[in-house]
Amino acid sequence: MRVAALAGGVGAGKLLRGLVRAVDPSGVTVIGNVADDMTHLGLRISPDLDSVAYWLSGGMDRERGWGRAGDTFRTIEELGRLGGESWFSLGDLDLATHLYRTRGLHEGATLSEVTAELCERLGVSCRLIPATDDELRTWLRVEGEPPELPFQRYWVERGAEPPVREVELRGAQEARPAPGVLEAIAEADALLICPSNPVVSVMPILAVPGIREALRERRDRVVGVSPIVGGTVLQGMADKLMPVMGLEVSAAGAAEAYRGLLAAWVVDERDRDLAPKIEEREEIRVGVTDTIMTDDEVSTRLARFALELLG
Amino acid sequence: MRVAALAGGVGAGKLLRGLVRAVDPSGVTVIGNVADDMTHLGLRISPDLDSVAYWLSGGMDRERGWGRAGDTFRTIEELGRLGGESWFSLGDLDLATHLYRTRGLHEGATLSEVTAELCERLGVSCRLIPATDDELRTWLRVEGEPPELPFQRYWVERGAEPPVREVELRGAQEARPAPGVLEAIAEADALLICPSNPVVSVMPILAVPGIREALRERRDRVVGVSPIVGGTVLQGMADKLMPVMGLEVSAAGAAEAYRGLLAAWVVDERDRDLAPKIEEREEIRVGVTDTIMTDDEVSTRLARFALELLG
Repeated sequence: MRVAALAGGVGAGKLLRGLVRAVDPSGVTVIGNVADDMTHLGLRISPDLDSVAYWLSGGMDRERGWGRAGDTFRTIEELGRLGGESWFSLGDLDLATHLYRTRGLHEGATLSEVTAELCERLGVSCRLIPATDDELRTWLRVEGEPPELPFQRYWVERGAEPPVREVELRGAQEARPAPGVLEAIAEADALLICPSNPVVSVMPILAVPGIREALRERRDRVVGVSPIVGGTVLQGMADKLMPVMGLEVSAAGAAEAYRGLLAAWVVDERDRDLAPKIEEREEIRVGVTDTIMTDDEVSTRLARFALELLG
Repeated sequence: MRVAALAGGVGAGKLLRGLVRAVDPSGVTVIGNVADDMTHLGLRISPDLDSVAYWLSGGMDRERGWGRAGDTFRTIEELGRLGGESWFSLGDLDLATHLYRTRGLHEGATLSEVTAELCERLGVSCRLIPATDDELRTWLRVEGEPPELPFQRYWVERGAEPPVREVELRGAQEARPAPGVLEAIAEADALLICPSNPVVSVMPILAVPGIREALRERRDRVVGVSPIVGGTVLQGMADKLMPVMGLEVSAAGAAEAYRGLLAAWVVDERDRDLAPKIEEREEIRVGVTDTIMTDDEVSTRLARFALELLG
């Protein structure tokens, strides 16, 4: 069975751990978000690709969500003492990933190539491809100074303040799908939209010319899992950004973000009451189950549930 | 008293710890070698400037010589596990220095400016200036493949094999002395050539147009300390490179490397027999003392001895 999954960071990582247990990992292609990427301290950092790779390799810090288990922060703490920028917490093990990627890109490799090498070394059992090898970046226009900030500066450095007026995706028009992305979508038996931030994780993937169209053609095989449970986000800042896009912060609002692309949608038990409304409004099947992925067993059951919902 | 010192790495660092105890550090300007610098893994690394800064700040690893005391190697070890280049041992604390420098240079600061910031943060009590802010690099032509290697690749990655045919300094003609270098030389009451590798540490400083001439004008105030004791090097690879330049591996050969620039030269007790020969051949004063800097007291006595030799 071939599955293509659209993935943000931690929420996706958790579900993907279940997906590679529910189906043969060799048939799984994960298409990852790169719009949160940044060049920081001279290093190319791809937070979402790394989160997915760490979760899939088992090297993640499950409690913290981001970064690697057992990591230390000696370099970044020392950088802070030196008066350097230490707002973006980089673990010492995590830094190795960024150094590997930065050097590969400097030497002319594509992000896809470097990502594949890293995944092999980390022991990721399925394929992980960035949505694009081109530069695609989320910027946020905010109510304050400076009037616009790249995603990580807003989210990590500023702690998601001040309020966002507008979400701007730069580079989308020129971006091309990375090699293998469109093929994976075209050939998949099932397409899975992970429970990631619709605005800054999944929409940037869909904004790469060709990807939304490819997905729409396969609409009957697309299932998504809601990142919103009981009206709140499990991680991240979707609650701050969905209203900016005119979306309700709910399992229904998240489904609306993917209007025209879904055949099925999975919501949590807590959102059982919303299911009929979503089914009617989006004209899709809605499944209700436990979506709080406290361990791999829940993740596996959830992945299986989502795939079975496609029939 | 104003002192300007020409410095390589560890040997210089040891003597400079004594110099800032022998005289008021606010009068000391260290002119550092940058020809061993490299861009590696996307990071700008300045091994000699860092060695001097670490030794002067007291943060050095005295046993190992290079790097910082109490450092760990988590990132570089992980990079090795990822299949990345781990031949250049970068400590986790040391990495903070390189990240600070890399970001500063990316943002348009000069190497001088970044070095001054780092020294202030590290607690270096005197001034440290790179010989030049321009790109100046030592390459070695070797008997083998590839036929030429940048300094660190030859020294660290290859373990100083195969034998060197020729030392090539790239960028010397275009390099300009960093701001303050010529002034420090012109205004110094004493000029000190540290016990560093004459070929790859001090000669690259002298190769920056203007510096050799400035030093020659102050010849009567220039004293050097031999990096060769009893015909062997205390650290580094001067013994491999001096013969390539036609220099004997001895306190006499090292003095010859600075012919026309010295008023005085300090050799170790073990080289007492060479003193008259050097005095006669180079037409300089030669002082004999203990030059093995096992602690700061020996370093301080040695610095004081060198300055007093100038009269």
